[in-house]
Amino acid sequence: MIAAPPLFPLPGTKQALETGDTLTPRFGPDGTITCVTLDADSRAVLMVAHMNAESLARTIESGEGWYWSRSRSELWHKGATSGNVQKVEDILIDCDQDAIVMTVRVEGHGASCHTGQVSCFYRRIPLGQTASPDTNLRLEHVGGAAKFDPADVYGSKD
Amino acid sequence: MIAAPPLFPLPGTKQALETGDTLTPRFGPDGTITCVTLDADSRAVLMVAHMNAESLARTIESGEGWYWSRSRSELWHKGATSGNVQKVEDILIDCDQDAIVMTVRVEGHGASCHTGQVSCFYRRIPLGQTASPDTNLRLEHVGGAAKFDPADVYGSKD
Repeated sequence: MIAAPPLFPLPGTKQALETGDTLTPRFGPDGTITCVTLDADSRAVLMVAHMNAESLARTIESGEGWYWSRSRSELWHKGATSGNVQKVEDILIDCDQDAIVMTVRVEGHGASCHTGQVSCFYRRIPLGQTASPDTNLRLEHVGGAAKFDPADVYGSKD
Repeated sequence: MIAAPPLFPLPGTKQALETGDTLTPRFGPDGTITCVTLDADSRAVLMVAHMNAESLARTIESGEGWYWSRSRSELWHKGATSGNVQKVEDILIDCDQDAIVMTVRVEGHGASCHTGQVSCFYRRIPLGQTASPDTNLRLEHVGGAAKFDPADVYGSKD
């Protein structure tokens, strides 16, 4: 079997990466790039997830959020099960082309976390706490009520 | 030599990670957690970087952005050289406690990218492009003018 040729050109020099106008994503050792997904209205960070070349290509072409599920080792069309499909408004890439920021509108329940929360970032770490081996640092729940019950949406899969 | 005890408790069950009110960050194989840094006013994503336990602890305690530089393998007080110190307003952690989102105000030039751009995310990937082994996908520069000249700020280090 011959390996398929890569979907994107290989990264060039530091200068080409930083100043070029060609997409040459730098996938990590596991073949993925980090994706930060923002809500178009609230500008909240909804999730931080990973894309391999195939999911990045599908996202750019289709305008819907596709990821690589590292826990399930499979291509993941976000919202295929829950209905919370992400319609992409904008994709940016960073200076060294190893992270992207994607702005989306979420369909369905309007939630992006598998817990039913709008955002995966539903807890705050209060500032001024001192970490030590003998101390537990507090988290504050700031996410409000869940938008759906994971048991209803995912059944026993969760 | 005896290893220092960890600064944070070890992660517990999935349920404890997702619903608990104790910070138990899940550092990856390289000892770091992903940090997304947002601008408090514009809500733009300024950078995506990494924190080890020491930098996370210093950030929470001091209210200034500390990272772990993977390229230099050193603790990194953001802005120590450039003056672009990040004053932290808020830190959130995600459902499985392996990513944080930090909202900051940037001092100095008000820029967070080593290229002099306000944000590392200064290029857009236009939607609707089809990736293939024979195609280069376009990037559009959307970052505006640089806020500083890296040669002035970093000298020959860059």
